[in-house]
Amino acid sequence: MTDSDTGQTQRPTPPAAISFARGAPSTDIVDVDGLKQAAVAAFENDPAGVTGYGTAIGYVPLRRWIAEKHGVPEDHVLVTNGSMQADAFLFDEYVRPGTAVITERPTYDRTLLGLRERGGEVHLVTLQEDGIDVDEVEALLAGGLRPALAHVIPNFQNPAGYTLSLAKRERLLALAHEYDFLLFEDDPYVDVRFTGEPLPRMLELDGGADSRQVVYACSFSKTVCPGIRVGYLVGPPAVIDRIRVRATNTYIAPNMVAQGTVYQYVTGDRFPAALERVKTALAERVGVLDESLRRHLPQATFRRPEGGYFLWVSLPEDEGHDVAAIVREATARGVTIVPGTDFLLEGGHNAFRLAYSGVTADVVDEGVRRLAEAVAAARG
Amino acid sequence: MTDSDTGQTQRPTPPAAISFARGAPSTDIVDVDGLKQAAVAAFENDPAGVTGYGTAIGYVPLRRWIAEKHGVPEDHVLVTNGSMQADAFLFDEYVRPGTAVITERPTYDRTLLGLRERGGEVHLVTLQEDGIDVDEVEALLAGGLRPALAHVIPNFQNPAGYTLSLAKRERLLALAHEYDFLLFEDDPYVDVRFTGEPLPRMLELDGGADSRQVVYACSFSKTVCPGIRVGYLVGPPAVIDRIRVRATNTYIAPNMVAQGTVYQYVTGDRFPAALERVKTALAERVGVLDESLRRHLPQATFRRPEGGYFLWVSLPEDEGHDVAAIVREATARGVTIVPGTDFLLEGGHNAFRLAYSGVTADVVDEGVRRLAEAVAAARG
Repeated sequence: MTDSDTGQTQRPTPPAAISFARGAPSTDIVDVDGLKQAAVAAFENDPAGVTGYGTAIGYVPLRRWIAEKHGVPEDHVLVTNGSMQADAFLFDEYVRPGTAVITERPTYDRTLLGLRERGGEVHLVTLQEDGIDVDEVEALLAGGLRPALAHVIPNFQNPAGYTLSLAKRERLLALAHEYDFLLFEDDPYVDVRFTGEPLPRMLELDGGADSRQVVYACSFSKTVCPGIRVGYLVGPPAVIDRIRVRATNTYIAPNMVAQGTVYQYVTGDRFPAALERVKTALAERVGVLDESLRRHLPQATFRRPEGGYFLWVSLPEDEGHDVAAIVREATARGVTIVPGTDFLLEGGHNAFRLAYSGVTADVVDEGVRRLAEAVAAARG
Repeated sequence: MTDSDTGQTQRPTPPAAISFARGAPSTDIVDVDGLKQAAVAAFENDPAGVTGYGTAIGYVPLRRWIAEKHGVPEDHVLVTNGSMQADAFLFDEYVRPGTAVITERPTYDRTLLGLRERGGEVHLVTLQEDGIDVDEVEALLAGGLRPALAHVIPNFQNPAGYTLSLAKRERLLALAHEYDFLLFEDDPYVDVRFTGEPLPRMLELDGGADSRQVVYACSFSKTVCPGIRVGYLVGPPAVIDRIRVRATNTYIAPNMVAQGTVYQYVTGDRFPAALERVKTALAERVGVLDESLRRHLPQATFRRPEGGYFLWVSLPEDEGHDVAAIVREATARGVTIVPGTDFLLEGGHNAFRLAYSGVTADVVDEGVRRLAEAVAAARG
């Protein structure tokens, strides 16, 4: 950078703020031109379909595309205004005051909130590096717990970034059958795997179209963009139909313009290359983040994720960290993070979540450097 | 029409189906090209804003435009995925099992459903040609009823097409103040008035930015298109903020691509002329409908609306009509209507709603002719 007055070269000004807080992509990895063309195609190819009301099942061609992707008949699919709206409908259907629900510990803060708002009795089960502790789930069930559903984020979990192993997927499914609870497979990150081999979905392991124990949720927020708010559910037709009625009574129909645009985009020429660009960028950011954490915060432990947006950092328990103080000190240094306590009902004071999806590789190291300063400052 | 085999001119085939059932515009009065251009402008002018998550208040520039339109500060406005979603949030906030609510009789079927699903104790008050019977409302209040809210569709009411007079607007507002209930002014049709003078909103009569008793809902479904699912609420900031929290917990944020597109469209060059075309088409359809009803169903009574989508037809009580049979006979003749019974908790057997928004003027008369046949056939 050259100072326009003196002509002398200066050090670059540090970026005003570096957000490791928000699980959202930076705009440089959103294919804005491709989306613009897809919107044009949606209006040109199906003007009545995208401008009319439609129905609560969602935009019919997109629903068909999703059904084909998952190898199920169309009546197993409902397309919604983002997958959180889908979660809300599912929780409205299954969770009453006192309903027992199993979730991972830690888990997505909005999931916990949604379950508790409905009066759900939430049982958080330890999350290990290969996914939820199935022994612990089994012990709860053997001890008499009868959950209506178990919520699991199988790939690149939010907030931990961990992935559920195949063996655990199979055991969890067997337990769902044995104790007849619904397995809610919440899978928004599956298509942004940047290394390693994909694992079969529990929906597939349960027979896909014949599955009776799995409701699967996914989203286009990570593969297309979040502002377009398109997500979906796949599950047994009877469940999907009850949610369809609920959706009809809530909003008549979801957004047809947005869903038509997503349909044109994911069936268009640009999507495969754009998705590769997203994965390459995420992989690069994780690479830098890994190195920077080892350099600036050598006392931290974490597992390098194979996909998704998040990495969970733990500091040594015996050092007595206070993550609220770390958040304050980091914010003062222009870095935002989400404290571990947000993803747990108790504990998490020595942990935080780093989202690398919104931080370009060139500023990751500076962000971690400031964060390490914050950790030191917070210990006084 | 020329038969391709014989070359002889034939009578046109009657249209397969004529729907007076759905309150939706025909595609010919949707400015598809204008919307396409607006979507392009949204992606080009604000790529980060429309592709990113945004927040539950809605797309910021559109929220500002709405605030200016209604002369209120921005924190009085929340933009949602369609105005039915806004209604749902408001009902979730105000209606508990046993909560007393006043509505019009007849009223929008989905409003009744939404209130009853939440356990609301619904008091339906007679709708007159100049709007809800305010004497009846006053008598209920004087008799001890203490509603949390009163739901009123002031302009071109669904299903009746009637408009609330200025005098009644003022009296209703006075009652809302005296008995401290919320007046829910549900106004999706206001901007498709095609004749007569607009009346002030109750929101305005109550002081606009200073209003404490009115929550106002509107939509872009009738002025832009329904498939884009954009609606909004205007109300006291404390109410709006509670609904913002609810919206955040339900879907994080509404559709930014759709709201950005609406923003570009309503601030663009094409909108005023396109809206005039909508009104002209609706006026023409009402003109034909009025004449056709007088010709084919002279025994029917109705009031020709000054705007909106709907006209309410009553047949003589003493003729003993059964609207379910009329619906069946009409359907058999390729004409769909919604029975009066759908908009009432009791009664309505001699009435039905005609939506003219989706029926082009050239087929209105044929539709009414078939409907008259159906009325005759239903009496057997």
